[in-house]
Amino acid sequence: MSAPGTIWGVGLGPGDPDLLSVKADRLLRGARHVAFFRKAGRQGQARRIVEGMLRADVTEIAMEYPVTTEIPLTDPRYNEILSAFYQTCTDRLCALSRAGEDVVIVCEGDPFFYGSFMHLHSRLRDHRPVQVVPAITGMSAAWTATDAPITWGDDILSTLMGTLPEDTLVEHMKRADALVIMKIGRNIEKIRRALRRAGRYDAAWLVEYASMPNQTVQRLSEAEDKITPYFSIIIVHGQGRRP
Amino acid sequence: MSAPGTIWGVGLGPGDPDLLSVKADRLLRGARHVAFFRKAGRQGQARRIVEGMLRADVTEIAMEYPVTTEIPLTDPRYNEILSAFYQTCTDRLCALSRAGEDVVIVCEGDPFFYGSFMHLHSRLRDHRPVQVVPAITGMSAAWTATDAPITWGDDILSTLMGTLPEDTLVEHMKRADALVIMKIGRNIEKIRRALRRAGRYDAAWLVEYASMPNQTVQRLSEAEDKITPYFSIIIVHGQGRRP
Repeated sequence: MSAPGTIWGVGLGPGDPDLLSVKADRLLRGARHVAFFRKAGRQGQARRIVEGMLRADVTEIAMEYPVTTEIPLTDPRYNEILSAFYQTCTDRLCALSRAGEDVVIVCEGDPFFYGSFMHLHSRLRDHRPVQVVPAITGMSAAWTATDAPITWGDDILSTLMGTLPEDTLVEHMKRADALVIMKIGRNIEKIRRALRRAGRYDAAWLVEYASMPNQTVQRLSEAEDKITPYFSIIIVHGQGRRP
Repeated sequence: MSAPGTIWGVGLGPGDPDLLSVKADRLLRGARHVAFFRKAGRQGQARRIVEGMLRADVTEIAMEYPVTTEIPLTDPRYNEILSAFYQTCTDRLCALSRAGEDVVIVCEGDPFFYGSFMHLHSRLRDHRPVQVVPAITGMSAAWTATDAPITWGDDILSTLMGTLPEDTLVEHMKRADALVIMKIGRNIEKIRRALRRAGRYDAAWLVEYASMPNQTVQRLSEAEDKITPYFSIIIVHGQGRRP
């Protein structure tokens, strides 16, 4: 019987392959089995980042979401369908590990920061050897793209999802010094209203495709009526103590 | 006249050299001039991370803080002394850039996330070519060390400095789902009180030296009376939606 294989959750960072960690780069280039999430019919962002870096004899494991936005989050079927999907993925990864094979699951951003990998990790961690490699977050790439620090001194940073209710957004936007808002897409008009109500709208920046060749950075107020991807990031910089 | 040299602010990540980005690794190994902050008489954490990676003919520029904790932050002299210090560093870096030399400033963590580099960047950006390379934050390494995701679904993450007043800490600890608390050291007893008042104490983890060989992870409640470094990180995980 062979030693169990390790299941690696490897963060790829924000999108530029040059921003992978040295460790992620090495694991990926040596991997015999590489798994990734994607929407059915798409290449998938994680897979796109690693294009040209995989071994010639690699086995690719595409884990295709059965639903993304077709069923609302509030529908009980949503949880049931996704839970069954994650269990199927887990079974497949466990079988490889039991056969002594290492698998690298590639994850956009940092695996433990709002990522799909977490749903596999929670199902795997008590049964198989699992290792996680942290990565540069999309938000780090976004504030770097604005060419200004996100936080100074004692600034409080709040990270908010655009999927939250408007009143919750407003409350936190008022109280924090620096803001990162993620999961934008169709939530953008609600986020604009919340930022206006909190008095932060004029200080907000919209970053699309942070660190990628098609990166854009503009004031949110100068992007009226803009349709922007779900993975865009809104940044409001802190203004704290600075000698 | 030669083309101006670029001043690079390069994030090194949390401490493990294997967690440098591919880009940071390449810039560093090729650099003719490497600058870093440190406390006088110490090697400095940034310099320690890059040990063994520099060119044989590198010029090292140690920028030594004139004060760290000898003068309280509230003393007006603190700002004056630090401001003069950052200006001196800036002048030196500008002189190299004007002479056509590139300089790599190595920074712990991510350069734009509570770092000293920002004080140089704000003085340099309008005068010289400056480029910033984001990096894995210490907080990413800390939550990875706990082997559990920091945020799920719509969780709100607040990043708080232990230097804040106790009441401010309590208010934000109550309202956010997930917490990262940094700048611990001598603030730890105040942070413990705030976490208790917010009802989050039993869920808090203390991570020391995240990603480094001497990394430790323990429940904060099991680290009573512990003296811990300023750069320790306290983590309270979000418990949001998960299928």
